[in-house]
Amino acid sequence: MRATFMYGAGDVRVDTVADPVIKEPTDAVVRVVLSCICGSDLHPYHSLPASDQGTPMGHEFLGVVEELGRDVAGLRRGDLVVAPFAFQDNTCDFCREGVQTSCRHGGFIPADATGGGQAEAVRVPQAAGTLVKLPVAADSDLLPSLLTLSDVFGTGHHAAVRAGVNPRTSVTVIGDGAVGLLAVMAAKRLGAEQIVLMGRHKDRTDLGREFGATDVVGERGEEGIARVRDLTGGDGTHTVLECVGHLPAYEQALGVVRAGGVISRVGVPQYDEAPIGFASLFGRNLTLTGGPAPVRAYIEELMPDILDGRLQPGRVFDRTLSLDQTPDGYRAMDQRQALKVLVRP
Amino acid sequence: MRATFMYGAGDVRVDTVADPVIKEPTDAVVRVVLSCICGSDLHPYHSLPASDQGTPMGHEFLGVVEELGRDVAGLRRGDLVVAPFAFQDNTCDFCREGVQTSCRHGGFIPADATGGGQAEAVRVPQAAGTLVKLPVAADSDLLPSLLTLSDVFGTGHHAAVRAGVNPRTSVTVIGDGAVGLLAVMAAKRLGAEQIVLMGRHKDRTDLGREFGATDVVGERGEEGIARVRDLTGGDGTHTVLECVGHLPAYEQALGVVRAGGVISRVGVPQYDEAPIGFASLFGRNLTLTGGPAPVRAYIEELMPDILDGRLQPGRVFDRTLSLDQTPDGYRAMDQRQALKVLVRP
Repeated sequence: MRATFMYGAGDVRVDTVADPVIKEPTDAVVRVVLSCICGSDLHPYHSLPASDQGTPMGHEFLGVVEELGRDVAGLRRGDLVVAPFAFQDNTCDFCREGVQTSCRHGGFIPADATGGGQAEAVRVPQAAGTLVKLPVAADSDLLPSLLTLSDVFGTGHHAAVRAGVNPRTSVTVIGDGAVGLLAVMAAKRLGAEQIVLMGRHKDRTDLGREFGATDVVGERGEEGIARVRDLTGGDGTHTVLECVGHLPAYEQALGVVRAGGVISRVGVPQYDEAPIGFASLFGRNLTLTGGPAPVRAYIEELMPDILDGRLQPGRVFDRTLSLDQTPDGYRAMDQRQALKVLVRP
Repeated sequence: MRATFMYGAGDVRVDTVADPVIKEPTDAVVRVVLSCICGSDLHPYHSLPASDQGTPMGHEFLGVVEELGRDVAGLRRGDLVVAPFAFQDNTCDFCREGVQTSCRHGGFIPADATGGGQAEAVRVPQAAGTLVKLPVAADSDLLPSLLTLSDVFGTGHHAAVRAGVNPRTSVTVIGDGAVGLLAVMAAKRLGAEQIVLMGRHKDRTDLGREFGATDVVGERGEEGIARVRDLTGGDGTHTVLECVGHLPAYEQALGVVRAGGVISRVGVPQYDEAPIGFASLFGRNLTLTGGPAPVRAYIEELMPDILDGRLQPGRVFDRTLSLDQTPDGYRAMDQRQALKVLVRP
């Protein structure tokens, strides 16, 4: 099959490799129908050291079950399924506590050196706990929106859930990437009435307004903080959904959060140490939360809104490429020519 | 009157100064019946730069209302009252959201350069929102326990509340000072069944066991972390109440908290930057919360358990001194000869 590998920063290639096979009785092999490129794929795209052995890429996909290990219950060959970016048994104590990303038998996709989601097929460990059947046909127009359940919508939702967004909380979303825009959608869905979107790409923030943002702040740093404070009577918002991952975004979050409020991070932190002392986090009783989204926990909750057409998170996809064009997709997202790229093998 | 001042690290004196007076119509003046020395008073005791002008000390006291500003409703001269260490109107939006320490008209006691709680009398701003009547006589045996409502019990309770302690959460308490021991009591009160107390002073941890600790770990650092993990099937506890404030205590908290869990800090951080990146906080979906306790929010909830004798948080006081002996009290607490010192003016 063909599969996407990264050989170093900026060096993405589509290679021909062996097809994935069942290794464990709990595995499935899924033939990919739709995949995409994640904002987090751009981190290694900027920094991965060069090597002869490529890193398999892609952790968001939906497809058709092709092979099943003998211990996989509840699935059949031919089922159309979506896969969270983490695999999990969905039965252990961590899964029951809602942190499927810390499952005792879990891990992250790609689970396999031979290929990830940006490929023709994928091996999925813990298939019974991981794959969720989609009640639509494989040519449904809903597939792009359903694909967002594998990561990006679930991740935006996780930011909002962890922040405790509800009709009484004001919200700032930092970042106008696909996760930020779907964090806006998730906050709106949970009832937030004021949603300030911080981002400076008009085409993206316009989509953010359609998703529910009530205000857009294009400025960054101190200027951006002052603008958000102006919009909130000087106090900032109860919750801040940090969907970027760079240190200045965290610092911005500290500046726009209201005393007693919550900063919820889903952008993968590209830093280790940061201010959390009296002057930054402690003195105002702020809460810092978030992490890799346990999207498996959210699929059943979010899917109905997509199936009945109420929400269209798939609108974050603004370009569709073939698998062979995947390197172009990385380039387009890196140069911000594309917001999020769909890949059809 | 006599009042306690600190003139630099290790230099505590009891001076004679003018009596406090009403400055604002919302003020009260309270004649102190019982005061005490706080663990947080030891921070300036170690580090306050020397100066000719002393810093007034003491933020925990109960006493009798002596004077009332004309706008103070709900209180009368002669009322026995307890004061939270922060003053607040208890009506603004921040107060209604449970962060009285960020009240729009609030601040911290001592509010006055002429004296704090370790004195014969204190000026209390925002008296109507701050002072809470005590339904006991001024010579009641319950006074030491009721005094803990001004800070130390409310602070331990805040750690437990912010951590979300309940019957299904396991708990580690870091620190066997008075706040740590009362965090144990608070966690037990909220239903926790496993409470691991990390502390190495046997007389204190013995009291912690009486307050509800099920396990005591005397080791620190990596060794202490390994012990707590042993006690919890290798996973750590759902919640960690960090009642120290030094960086190694935070690092210890990261080591003993379970994936998906909460670190709740009430020890005033003596550091600014600390690890919060993927490897420390983010990757395991940990939450960091806490801050200066809005103890005013908790007094009505906690007082009944003291009045009916169910809880005796005043057992943390193991020495009683007169106001003139306050400098000896600092010395005794600093040298760990006393856990917490009561001061009777």
